[in-house]
Amino acid sequence: MAVSDDTGISLDELRLAARNHGMPLEALRSAITPVGLHYLLVHFDVPFVDPDSWRLEIDGAVERPMSLSLIDVRRRPEVELTATMECAGNGRALLEPRPISQPWVTEAVGTAHWGGVSLGALLREAVPADSAVDVVFTGLDRGRDGGVEQQYARSLSLLDAMEGGAVLAYDMNGAPLPAQHGFPLRLVVPGWYGMTNVKWLMEITVLEEPFTGYQMAPGYRFRQTEEEEGRPVTRMRPRSLMAPPGMPDFLTRERIVDGDDVLLEGRAWSGTAPIARVEVSDDGGETWAPAEIERDLDDRWAWVGWRFRWRPPAAGAFTLCCRATNERGETQPLEPEWNLGGYENNAVQRVSVTVR
Amino acid sequence: MAVSDDTGISLDELRLAARNHGMPLEALRSAITPVGLHYLLVHFDVPFVDPDSWRLEIDGAVERPMSLSLIDVRRRPEVELTATMECAGNGRALLEPRPISQPWVTEAVGTAHWGGVSLGALLREAVPADSAVDVVFTGLDRGRDGGVEQQYARSLSLLDAMEGGAVLAYDMNGAPLPAQHGFPLRLVVPGWYGMTNVKWLMEITVLEEPFTGYQMAPGYRFRQTEEEEGRPVTRMRPRSLMAPPGMPDFLTRERIVDGDDVLLEGRAWSGTAPIARVEVSDDGGETWAPAEIERDLDDRWAWVGWRFRWRPPAAGAFTLCCRATNERGETQPLEPEWNLGGYENNAVQRVSVTVR
Repeated sequence: MAVSDDTGISLDELRLAARNHGMPLEALRSAITPVGLHYLLVHFDVPFVDPDSWRLEIDGAVERPMSLSLIDVRRRPEVELTATMECAGNGRALLEPRPISQPWVTEAVGTAHWGGVSLGALLREAVPADSAVDVVFTGLDRGRDGGVEQQYARSLSLLDAMEGGAVLAYDMNGAPLPAQHGFPLRLVVPGWYGMTNVKWLMEITVLEEPFTGYQMAPGYRFRQTEEEEGRPVTRMRPRSLMAPPGMPDFLTRERIVDGDDVLLEGRAWSGTAPIARVEVSDDGGETWAPAEIERDLDDRWAWVGWRFRWRPPAAGAFTLCCRATNERGETQPLEPEWNLGGYENNAVQRVSVTVR
Repeated sequence: MAVSDDTGISLDELRLAARNHGMPLEALRSAITPVGLHYLLVHFDVPFVDPDSWRLEIDGAVERPMSLSLIDVRRRPEVELTATMECAGNGRALLEPRPISQPWVTEAVGTAHWGGVSLGALLREAVPADSAVDVVFTGLDRGRDGGVEQQYARSLSLLDAMEGGAVLAYDMNGAPLPAQHGFPLRLVVPGWYGMTNVKWLMEITVLEEPFTGYQMAPGYRFRQTEEEEGRPVTRMRPRSLMAPPGMPDFLTRERIVDGDDVLLEGRAWSGTAPIARVEVSDDGGETWAPAEIERDLDDRWAWVGWRFRWRPPAAGAFTLCCRATNERGETQPLEPEWNLGGYENNAVQRVSVTVR
């Protein structure tokens, strides 16, 4: 059994790891992630919102500002969306040196079926000014981040907000949002990393100049140094994960696999273009063989399933990997692209198995 | 802002911390913990069970062995129970030296309303032999722990099983158990630490000799050395937690508090005797003042609420603590009692706040 190195995790980071949670990887066998297993990251505290007094304000550079109750929102035509959502910091703890923040390993992902109203339709009701450029989404969650006191807020360009298929969701997997997933209303922008999907929405503000809030910059920028401006983190890079086969060791999570015909299965997703193929390796990424793709969810924004019948060439230790490629030819690297915030790490997963 | 020391957490332990999750402490404001926020520890993998083919076997030293379908179980009279459940390893990561395992800080707890059948009534149907001493509960979850391959299994004495108020639960907070909490059936033994409450139950076996499975010994023994036999970990020590006031800093979770009249609130529980009192300190445990107790759940096995109106004597930094004492006079210590497995750490919680 390999003894892992000290990660250097601080008690502060461990507190974040104990509060927030990834999706146990065996849940990759479910097309739709059961609610309590969907990954969860809460920047500040979960606000417990009284739905009767809650209002959504739509304001700023719009012709018709609106103040909507939850009943007003639910009265509008319902749209549905099945979307895979991954935290931008997924895989952060595997970078070296390790960026200091929520220390995700590989499991900060999930797929949900969302019900709500079309963001584009609601904005069209409000009639944005011709000069509008950005739309800001502000949540009820408040705290300090990087020394700055703030409500959690993120923006989209007017074009992404109007045409990106975004939903203001009040239902998750057929039931009202749980408190921790943004009750009573959250933004869901298909294909984007998780930080985009503002929870506990209280205000949508149309701006005539670019939004410069903390969570847009310095937050969620892909850059190598503090001095660099970097580029914004937006859509999910292609990624695949495997449900680890066989049975686990409690502490190491290493797998023990029996038999000479092992079904490997998992999921793959990409926010930039549909998944084209998934490949599997049993030698740590030296050689690859194609997996069978199963498009079992009828939504371009949901992950696809994949399967591979593995015939272990012998007993002993193997490092299984999977690798997704999208229709643009973007593929998962063997090694991550290091960056200051620890974002967008889509390096291939490695699963240690012992075949007996 | 305090910079925390390196915890020495390994990547293996971090993987456990990313899979399993505590209850975000702001959920202490809810008497019943919303399902996705209840703490969760899964020893091996979550089994996803087909309820139609699932059976519960009741066998061993009984006059009438039984094999029950889920419908058979649900057809029996329903009993309900509201119980607080805490992981025996809660607080493990705060021990020095730190025992290697799931690295909980303070939040591995939750309270649920369970619906199911009485374990005692079901055992009476099966008629245990006069010579019976132990009852073993075996789950469908399988893996390796401490080098031993096993189904997860724990036992109770026949007396605790018959008379301890235990429930075989199929509902949690009014809905069928979620997969991760033991669907379709789990054991709930009120007042005991979490490892007792075997999930994904497949078999109940009555034994005429003491059960010696891994999870009874060496697992879950309170001892100082590997050589020592130690005593079994059983009922929850008295403990209280505070919902951290004000707003958090993202990374450190330290609190920023405004005002000169701050409502502090939290919960307290004990598996050995009812909670008698809760006290609060704003100087790290040097001086204490009594909190007001609110028994808002009608069950001896559920936590009680507590409240304290705090008037900060000045602006600046404070360390808030709370301390519960039960009717036996057992109280929370300022420093934990170190042990090899990192169990039963009920030392007082410390919450760093800055009053402005």
